[in-house]
Amino acid sequence: MRKELEDKLHKEIPITKIMGLKLNSYNKDELLTSAPLDININDKGTAFGGSLNTITIISGWSMCWLISKELNIDSNNIVIIKNQTSYLKPVKKNISCYTKKPTKEEISILKEKINKKNSASIKIVSKIIENNQVCVEFEGIYVIKL
Amino acid sequence: MRKELEDKLHKEIPITKIMGLKLNSYNKDELLTSAPLDININDKGTAFGGSLNTITIISGWSMCWLISKELNIDSNNIVIIKNQTSYLKPVKKNISCYTKKPTKEEISILKEKINKKNSASIKIVSKIIENNQVCVEFEGIYVIKL
Repeated sequence: MRKELEDKLHKEIPITKIMGLKLNSYNKDELLTSAPLDININDKGTAFGGSLNTITIISGWSMCWLISKELNIDSNNIVIIKNQTSYLKPVKKNISCYTKKPTKEEISILKEKINKKNSASIKIVSKIIENNQVCVEFEGIYVIKL
Repeated sequence: MRKELEDKLHKEIPITKIMGLKLNSYNKDELLTSAPLDININDKGTAFGGSLNTITIISGWSMCWLISKELNIDSNNIVIIKNQTSYLKPVKKNISCYTKKPTKEEISILKEKINKKNSASIKIVSKIIENNQVCVEFEGIYVIKL
């Protein structure tokens, strides 16, 4: 499912392929995504803020897509409506982004809302971590519509 | 100065060139930037949220760079530390981003702080507008350090 999604992103959202986005692993706790530093570099030789925000945005979106698949609901209408990002430290190597899977309770509330109203929003949080230090904190609100 | 900055961005931040970022005009009120839809497209045929956020982030950064040049202060150490973005409507054509120039008073406070502390932060706001409707609202906090 992870590989299917990676192929889909690369095909349908060309910037994700160009920036070298990879969906590295996915389990019950989190989704790990990455991108190389070289193509995403800035004038200071560290990762470009635009790329850092893009990887968090698409990782949160990917989490919603994966959850939708697991819930057996249509995953064709997922959009971000808001995000908030803090850049705490520069990222000096390849970018590694950890996106937390919402709790079972949050997912069950999401499913209930979608069943009732054909639409629901969910908060997804991500962190970009380097050498055990949080460099970027991201919070995004996504809407899933049937 | 605008053209010098566009060349600098394309050279030092390769993603800005790949996404087709243009610095179209700059005056006392605002900076207009743009990017074509095709390379920045998503699975729905509208502009990718990551690209929308990237153009706002780099436009805010560009505004700080332009102000630094005007103030005759070093423009080599400008970083974003936080941003907040709302996606109100999908962007269906080429992306046009309007970044408001801070008021004279805000710029004079910035200059005073930099003179005193060698560092200051400033809030920059941008809007992505299509057919007279605001599609994306962005607020970024940038730090300029000497």
